[in-house]
Amino acid sequence: MERKIILSENEIPRFYYNIMADMPNKPLPPLHPGTKQPITPDMLEPLFPRELILQEVSDERYIEIPAGVREIYTRWRPTPLFRAYGLEKLLDTPARIFYKYEGVSPAGSHKPNTAVAQAFYNKIEGVRRITTETGAGQWGSALAYACQIFGLECEVFMVKVSYDGKPYRKVMMNTFGANVHASPSSLTSAGRTILESEPGSNGSLGIAISEAIERAAADPHSHYALGSVLNHVLLHQTVIGQEAIIQMEKAGFMPDMVIAPFGGGSNFAGIAFPFLRLNLAENQKIRFIAVEPSSCPKLTRGEFRYDFGDTAGMTPLLPMYTLGSSFMPSPIHAGGLRYHGAGVLVSQLLKDGLIEAVAQSQQRCFEAGMDFIRAEGIIPAPEATHAIASVIDEAVKCREEGISRTILFNLCGHGYFDMAAYETYLSGELTDVQVSDEEIRKTVAFTDGFQPEKARA
Amino acid sequence: MERKIILSENEIPRFYYNIMADMPNKPLPPLHPGTKQPITPDMLEPLFPRELILQEVSDERYIEIPAGVREIYTRWRPTPLFRAYGLEKLLDTPARIFYKYEGVSPAGSHKPNTAVAQAFYNKIEGVRRITTETGAGQWGSALAYACQIFGLECEVFMVKVSYDGKPYRKVMMNTFGANVHASPSSLTSAGRTILESEPGSNGSLGIAISEAIERAAADPHSHYALGSVLNHVLLHQTVIGQEAIIQMEKAGFMPDMVIAPFGGGSNFAGIAFPFLRLNLAENQKIRFIAVEPSSCPKLTRGEFRYDFGDTAGMTPLLPMYTLGSSFMPSPIHAGGLRYHGAGVLVSQLLKDGLIEAVAQSQQRCFEAGMDFIRAEGIIPAPEATHAIASVIDEAVKCREEGISRTILFNLCGHGYFDMAAYETYLSGELTDVQVSDEEIRKTVAFTDGFQPEKARA
Repeated sequence: MERKIILSENEIPRFYYNIMADMPNKPLPPLHPGTKQPITPDMLEPLFPRELILQEVSDERYIEIPAGVREIYTRWRPTPLFRAYGLEKLLDTPARIFYKYEGVSPAGSHKPNTAVAQAFYNKIEGVRRITTETGAGQWGSALAYACQIFGLECEVFMVKVSYDGKPYRKVMMNTFGANVHASPSSLTSAGRTILESEPGSNGSLGIAISEAIERAAADPHSHYALGSVLNHVLLHQTVIGQEAIIQMEKAGFMPDMVIAPFGGGSNFAGIAFPFLRLNLAENQKIRFIAVEPSSCPKLTRGEFRYDFGDTAGMTPLLPMYTLGSSFMPSPIHAGGLRYHGAGVLVSQLLKDGLIEAVAQSQQRCFEAGMDFIRAEGIIPAPEATHAIASVIDEAVKCREEGISRTILFNLCGHGYFDMAAYETYLSGELTDVQVSDEEIRKTVAFTDGFQPEKARA
Repeated sequence: MERKIILSENEIPRFYYNIMADMPNKPLPPLHPGTKQPITPDMLEPLFPRELILQEVSDERYIEIPAGVREIYTRWRPTPLFRAYGLEKLLDTPARIFYKYEGVSPAGSHKPNTAVAQAFYNKIEGVRRITTETGAGQWGSALAYACQIFGLECEVFMVKVSYDGKPYRKVMMNTFGANVHASPSSLTSAGRTILESEPGSNGSLGIAISEAIERAAADPHSHYALGSVLNHVLLHQTVIGQEAIIQMEKAGFMPDMVIAPFGGGSNFAGIAFPFLRLNLAENQKIRFIAVEPSSCPKLTRGEFRYDFGDTAGMTPLLPMYTLGSSFMPSPIHAGGLRYHGAGVLVSQLLKDGLIEAVAQSQQRCFEAGMDFIRAEGIIPAPEATHAIASVIDEAVKCREEGISRTILFNLCGHGYFDMAAYETYLSGELTDVQVSDEEIRKTVAFTDGFQPEKARA
C-alpha cells in the first residue's frame, strides 16, 4: 500500500454534512440572555450573512458547497491521508495508524475550510469587511487568507500577549493583506475601557471577541466571523471526514476509532461527524475520542449547562459543556484549545454518550509530538499533539492486548509557527498547571444565574 | 484541467539523471590547490562516502536511486505541480504558468532530496556522524531531518548572525535531533582562531564550512556533507524535473521555458536538467533561465575560472563562474543564494550557451513574492521569489507580444521561517546593495593565482 492516499480534485466533497439531521436528540436552542427565550435568526443578521444563519439552524442532512468555494478548495484539497508506518514501527504496535493532514493548507491548518466558505457567503451578500479575533493566530491567518481571495477587508483583533509573543503569525496575516490590532485596542469602547483600568493588559480571547463584535455591529458593511464552536463552522469542516472516508476505503480499512484535538469543536467535528453518521445511520461501532488539554478540561470535568460563548457575556446563551465563561485557561502553547466551552453539537453528542473525551497534559503532548517528529518527520502544531498523545495511548493498548485496531486521527496543522513552544519543551522549561475542582466549581457556579427553568430539567 | 497535477508514489523516479552523459563539453576537472593537478577520488574519502565520490565523477546517464531512499521520498514525493491560474489572471497574460512545489517536504524546501540520499550512503558505509554548515538554515534542517531517519548524529555549524537572527530554524534542527553550534565556535581550531582575533564575529559561510570540514576530517567515524554546488548534489535533485516532465505531459503542455532560483545550482539543476536532456538528446528548444540576486551576480557579472568552493580556501579548485572566493555577498534575506560561485556543471552549461542567467534585485523579488501570495495564496521563500520575479517578467512579455507561452518554474520552498524578511519588506525598510564593477574586479582578480596554465587556454 502507498504511504499516502491522494484523491483527485473531483473527489472534493460537493456537500457539507450536517449531523443535526441524524442526531437522536437535537440540541437545545440558543437563548437570548435577557429574555431567556430562543433567539430568532434575524437577531444574528447584524453579525452574519443570511446563508450562514440558515446553516446554523438547518436540519437538512446535506448542504451544497458553492462552486466558488470548491474552486478555492482545489488550491490544497483534497488533503493527503497518511499511513503512519513510522509511528507504528516506533511503537511496535499491531495497530494500523492513519492521519489526515490538514497542515498542507496555505494557512497551515484546517481553519481555511470554513474561512473560505464564510468569506464567500459574506462576499455574495455584499459585505465589505469581516472582523474577527484570534489567539495564537491560526484562525486569524486563515480568515485573512480567505478575505484576500474575495477582495474583502479583514480586521483581526489579536490577543496582545500573542501579538507580542508570536509576531510571525501577525506578519503572515499582513502578507495576506489583513489589518491586525493588538487587543485590547483603543479602536473600540470595549478595548478603551480595559486600557483605562489596566493600561498594560495582556488581553484575552474574551476581550478580543468583544472588540471584533463591536466593530462589526457598528458598521453596516461589516460582519463578524468565528473560527469554531458554531454549528455552521463545524459543518464546513466536514469536508475533512468525507474525504477521509473515501481514503480509508481506498486503503482497505475502516477506523475502529477516530481521534482529534478538541478546542471549540471544529477540528474534532470535521473529521468525526461524517464517520459518526455511519454509527447513527448504518449501525457501525466506531469510537470517537475528543482530546482536550488537562488545563482546560471542559469535556471531562466541566458541566453541561447554558453559558455565554465569550468572557464578556455578549453572545447568546448556548447549551454546552463548560468550565464557566469566567474560567481563565492557563497559557499553554496549544492556544487553539484554550476555550472554556464546547460547541453545542459536540456537547449534545457527548451528553448522549455517542462520543468520548479524554484530557492530556501539556508535557505528555509534547513528548508525543517529539515521538511523532522522530517517526514521521512532520512537526505537528501543539494542538495536534493532543490527538497524537491519545493515539499513542491507544496504539500501546493494542500492543499490550495483542489486538490490531485501526486508528484514524486528524493532524490538524503544522508547528512551523510554534517553534518557540518546542524550544521551551526541549530546554526542559515546560510547565503544567493543575486545575483544582474548587476552581471549576467556582467558575461553573457563575453560570447558575443563566439557567432557564426549562433547560435545567 | 485540475489545478494540481498529482502523481502516485510509483511514479517517483527510479533513477537520478546525470547530465554529464549528455553534455557536449565535459567540465574541466577539479584541481588540487597545491599541485594544480586533477584530484583523485581517494583524496575525498576522509569527507565523503565512496558511492557519492563515484557519483561525483560518473558519466553514466542514469544512476539508480536506492530502494531505501525512494521509500523515504514517499513521505512527501511526488510533489505537486500547480497550474498558476491565479497568477495568470492577476497578470492578465496569455502565458500558461506552472510551478513545481517543493515546499511540501518536511524541511520545507527541495533540500531533503539530496540530504536523504547523502545520509543513506553514509549510513550504509558505516559513518556515525555527519557535519555540515548552514546559513539561513534550510540545508541544515534538511540534513538534520535525514540523519534522524537513519540514526546518524548530525552536527551543524550555523553562521552566527543566522543562529541569533533565525532561532526557529535552529529549534527545528533541534527537534530533528541535531546539535547546532553558532559559528565561529570554540570547538575547532578554525573557529578559535577567528574568535581570538574577533571575539564578536558574526561568522560567515566560509568559516562555518571550515569548521564542519575540520570536525569531519578529525574523526574517522564522521563525514561532511554539502547542500549544493557539487555534481552529486545536483544529481539527486533531478527527481524534481523528472517528475515535472510526467506532470507537464499529463497537463498537456511542455514548457517553452524553465525558470529557477540560483544559489549554488542544486535548485536550478533539479528542475532544469531533465528538461535540458530533451534539448541535448531530442533537439527540443526549451529555454532555461537561472535567476540570481543582483547583489551576488556570479552568473551575469562573474568570470569563468578556477576558484575555491569556500572562503578559507580548503576545498579543491573548481572551474566555475565566480565573483572570487573572497567576495562577501550583502546580507539579503535569500540566504540560500548568497554564494560566490556556481556549481561546475551549471557553469559549463552557461559557458556553452545552453542555459541563460538573469539577476533580480531584492526589492523586485519581494514585490513579486507579494503578487504570488495575493494570486496563489502560498508564501514563498525569499529564494523562490527570484524565480517568480523572472516568471512575471516573461509572462508580461507574453501579454505585450500577444503570444501564449508555457512557463514552468521551481517553487523551491515556503517562507514560513522567513516572516521577519516579509516584515522588513512590508515596513518599507528593505535595502538593496549595488555591487560595483570595481569590487568584482578586485575579488575575481584574487583568483588569478589559482589558474593553472592549461586551464587558462
